Amino acid sequence: MTERDSGEWIAGKHPVMEALRSGREINKIWVAEQSQKNLPAQIIAEARRAGIVVQVADKRKLDQLAPDVPHQGIVAQAAAYRYYEIDELLERAAASGETPFFLLLDEIEDPHNLGSILRTAECTGVHGVIIPKRRSASLNATVSKTSAGAAEYVPVARVTNLAQTIDRLKEAGIWIAGADVGAERDVYETALDMPLAVVIGNESKGIGRLIREKCDFLLKLPMTGRLNSLNASVAAGVLMYEVIRQRRSR
Amino acid sequence: MTERDSGEWIAGKHPVMEALRSGREINKIWVAEQSQKNLPAQIIAEARRAGIVVQVADKRKLDQLAPDVPHQGIVAQAAAYRYYEIDELLERAAASGETPFFLLLDEIEDPHNLGSILRTAECTGVHGVIIPKRRSASLNATVSKTSAGAAEYVPVARVTNLAQTIDRLKEAGIWIAGADVGAERDVYETALDMPLAVVIGNESKGIGRLIREKCDFLLKLPMTGRLNSLNASVAAGVLMYEVIRQRRSR
Repeated sequence: MTERDSGEWIAGKHPVMEALRSGREINKIWVAEQSQKNLPAQIIAEARRAGIVVQVADKRKLDQLAPDVPHQGIVAQAAAYRYYEIDELLERAAASGETPFFLLLDEIEDPHNLGSILRTAECTGVHGVIIPKRRSASLNATVSKTSAGAAEYVPVARVTNLAQTIDRLKEAGIWIAGADVGAERDVYETALDMPLAVVIGNESKGIGRLIREKCDFLLKLPMTGRLNSLNASVAAGVLMYEVIRQRRSR
Repeated sequence: MTERDSGEWIAGKHPVMEALRSGREINKIWVAEQSQKNLPAQIIAEARRAGIVVQVADKRKLDQLAPDVPHQGIVAQAAAYRYYEIDELLERAAASGETPFFLLLDEIEDPHNLGSILRTAECTGVHGVIIPKRRSASLNATVSKTSAGAAEYVPVARVTNLAQTIDRLKEAGIWIAGADVGAERDVYETALDMPLAVVIGNESKGIGRLIREKCDFLLKLPMTGRLNSLNASVAAGVLMYEVIRQRRSR
């Protein structure tokens, strides 16, 4: 089931520009009259070229449209994010000719972490990110802004049952690696160049028990300090880049 | 010149616990009466053992003491952060018997990024983090909270002139590597096992021109997507772990 939530608000120069560039369906753009001259001319030109209505309004109108997000004088109303199907992610990986590489986020709650993870996923060429419907940050304006536009490019699937999705990935020949601070296996002593999905757990609880048991193996990053805990988006970033490093040096 | 700012507020269970564990000088602790039963018993026990006054107060009092930070019913007033001298960082590295490894942050402005970077620095055993006095986030309650306690363990030096500090580090035999998205050299084709300071630039502008010219070499992370831009704390994390990986495999 492909989902369409209600429309989404995109705020800020960079996110709006990326939404335009990625060809995302945008209904309308509001520009604050006070900040018109500070906006890159390309944004307006690009919007006009795409036939999108650009309305000049008072800054307070934009504050209402995009509360809690620094909008820098520009807000766009876009069609809802399109979530992908697992099969679409698999097809996308197959079509790329590359070794499949997915990310499973087991209840990442902080939208800033989700945005930052999508940004790294875009830079490392991850074929798709899978999130659960419940107890997870979902694609919204904060995620889009934090992702610096990556939310427009990285396909995200939202699933009802992450455990079943893991079974589906395993059937497709994909190995499931869970990032776990208590793992015995060190990431730098582990081959990661096979078809792979890396599971990142919740910011405080880590990966849930059921999902952890479904992983083919668990791995950890070496820790030399006393705290033994990284920010979830940093841990995800280090793991994504280690996969890339190993595949490039193969 | 060692600096002491005015006292600092530490909010939240984990940061207060880490401040206590690290032996940081704490003047007083406030606990919200509504949340007393939700606090780990060790926090209060640890505070009592250290002879720190623990006062029970209304939640609104704590909201006043630590505005803008989710305090989870516990707030501590600590002596100001102690910033380290460059010489102290060098001595610390020498005393460790390890190859020196420092981080220079050229105008990281977002306290969440600074906190997250300190967290990774703690986990990877970085000997010290150097920040400029101007146009940089400094150690405060938000940084402490985002660092999950790492701000109590990782020595931070705050300097007036980052360029002069680089000269000082070079004199001490330390190589300066700048992280730059436009660099020609790929991090995975670069040896990083010598005495090293990695420079991370500002979130939007990157490393300033003068500082970039002072670097011995620039390096970049491979980018396979269209955006070519990582969150600063993720980029810093990937680089710190690559240094660790190379040193371990040596």
